[in-house]
Amino acid sequence: MEVAYYQDRFLSSTDELAIPIQERGHQFGDGIYEVVRVYNQKPFMMEDHLKRFERSADAIMLQLPYSREEMKAIILDGIQRSGLDNVDVYFQVTRGIAPRIHLFPDTPAVFSMIIRPARELAPEKKQNGVPVLMLEDERWANCYIKSLNLLPNVLAKQHAFKNGCEEAILVKDGFVTEGSSSNLFVVKDEILYTTPATKGILHGITRKAVLQLANTLKIQVKEEHFSPSFLKAADEAFITSTTAEILPINKVDDVLLPTDHTVTKQLQQAFQSLK
Amino acid sequence: MEVAYYQDRFLSSTDELAIPIQERGHQFGDGIYEVVRVYNQKPFMMEDHLKRFERSADAIMLQLPYSREEMKAIILDGIQRSGLDNVDVYFQVTRGIAPRIHLFPDTPAVFSMIIRPARELAPEKKQNGVPVLMLEDERWANCYIKSLNLLPNVLAKQHAFKNGCEEAILVKDGFVTEGSSSNLFVVKDEILYTTPATKGILHGITRKAVLQLANTLKIQVKEEHFSPSFLKAADEAFITSTTAEILPINKVDDVLLPTDHTVTKQLQQAFQSLK
Repeated sequence: MEVAYYQDRFLSSTDELAIPIQERGHQFGDGIYEVVRVYNQKPFMMEDHLKRFERSADAIMLQLPYSREEMKAIILDGIQRSGLDNVDVYFQVTRGIAPRIHLFPDTPAVFSMIIRPARELAPEKKQNGVPVLMLEDERWANCYIKSLNLLPNVLAKQHAFKNGCEEAILVKDGFVTEGSSSNLFVVKDEILYTTPATKGILHGITRKAVLQLANTLKIQVKEEHFSPSFLKAADEAFITSTTAEILPINKVDDVLLPTDHTVTKQLQQAFQSLK
Repeated sequence: MEVAYYQDRFLSSTDELAIPIQERGHQFGDGIYEVVRVYNQKPFMMEDHLKRFERSADAIMLQLPYSREEMKAIILDGIQRSGLDNVDVYFQVTRGIAPRIHLFPDTPAVFSMIIRPARELAPEKKQNGVPVLMLEDERWANCYIKSLNLLPNVLAKQHAFKNGCEEAILVKDGFVTEGSSSNLFVVKDEILYTTPATKGILHGITRKAVLQLANTLKIQVKEEHFSPSFLKAADEAFITSTTAEILPINKVDDVLLPTDHTVTKQLQQAFQSLK
């Protein structure tokens, strides 16, 4: 079953009315989040997610209400309560409940969590790839912070979907940054390219796993900025995220990419072994 | 008393738990808002606020749950329930309640509202002005949309406050855009300058009122981009917003501005007559 937690307790259901209107999440998107995938009751790379969560909190000067160990305990408790083997754990912390003014309130931050059955992608997508649409990256300067300010991401994803695509690939100042909810990799002449982990992109946990696997598999990696035309001329390309894992791209705008996914498949297989 | 409304009803109090966790406001900041000032039970420029609200909704492809007349009725009902003469009416609409994925849900959008006693600025601030701090404008490309994605604004305002300033003045690509929650005007050689209403700034209702007043008062206006050094060399400068109205600036970073606020005072007086 689905599990929900808010502030200091597990809720009776995910539908329970738990939040007052004057919550910094609701009124400012003033908070941060993470999504952890659980395979067979085992949270995947949870330590990395919690570390990134703490970095996001530091970046927005947010004092987390729980220690890392306390968060782990709540998450593990929640997974057990779900009674499910494979779930997505979504958790966030906002700057708490206070009358609305921009300045930080003098109130404790609030943790909330939703645990749901894992959102599995159709196997044929992982096999054959998905089409993507390139769009202008209109987001703010600090996308390395996993914040709740996701409106530009939502709009980009919806725009891609409306055009029959699975993901929006964002382009800033002539260079590809990342997807609306994923990182991007390109294979060209047996070299694996990905945008460097600047402030302009999320430092993905699956991205990190892929870079480690590439190292193990002796695939040469270049963390470099690249152009839309470089992506369209790719031998292979794929996106990565906690829920999509490693997902090949078969089409960029109107350009079909080659169907040979040799390197992508190698990485997909190696990724399975990490679970 | 304070008044709160969520979805389809007035709440028992602003503290009432009204929102489930999986609300697009709480998880994505996926919504828009307005703040209307009420003077002596009379909402100020409400029609303009409601029009802008509709433009914001269109810009993010959000179907409002109420017509303009219905929103007006709820707002006026709320003002009456408050039993107060001078209040701030905050209202927002989010993309509703649905299990969390980026794509638009197939659920109705949700209106919420908070009415509180008007936040009055200290008279000496309106008289003598306030110090401001210039900061990099790190926001997204579409600040003309009055969205709930306010984290960059919150961080900038807090940064300014920590440095003893009332407002952060944002600078993008070498040009001043606006304040973290206000528009900016500069008087130089009897000409009134303000940043043009591009996609990069909020098209403020008070900004609009000031431009109209300037016209009536035969003050020459130039809607032009200007640099931080132009602001620092101002004869007068002020910020405008629904809650701050017309607020002189007396210091920009370390630079004191002249204490003669002739044009500003003229506009402040004319503004009073609009109420």
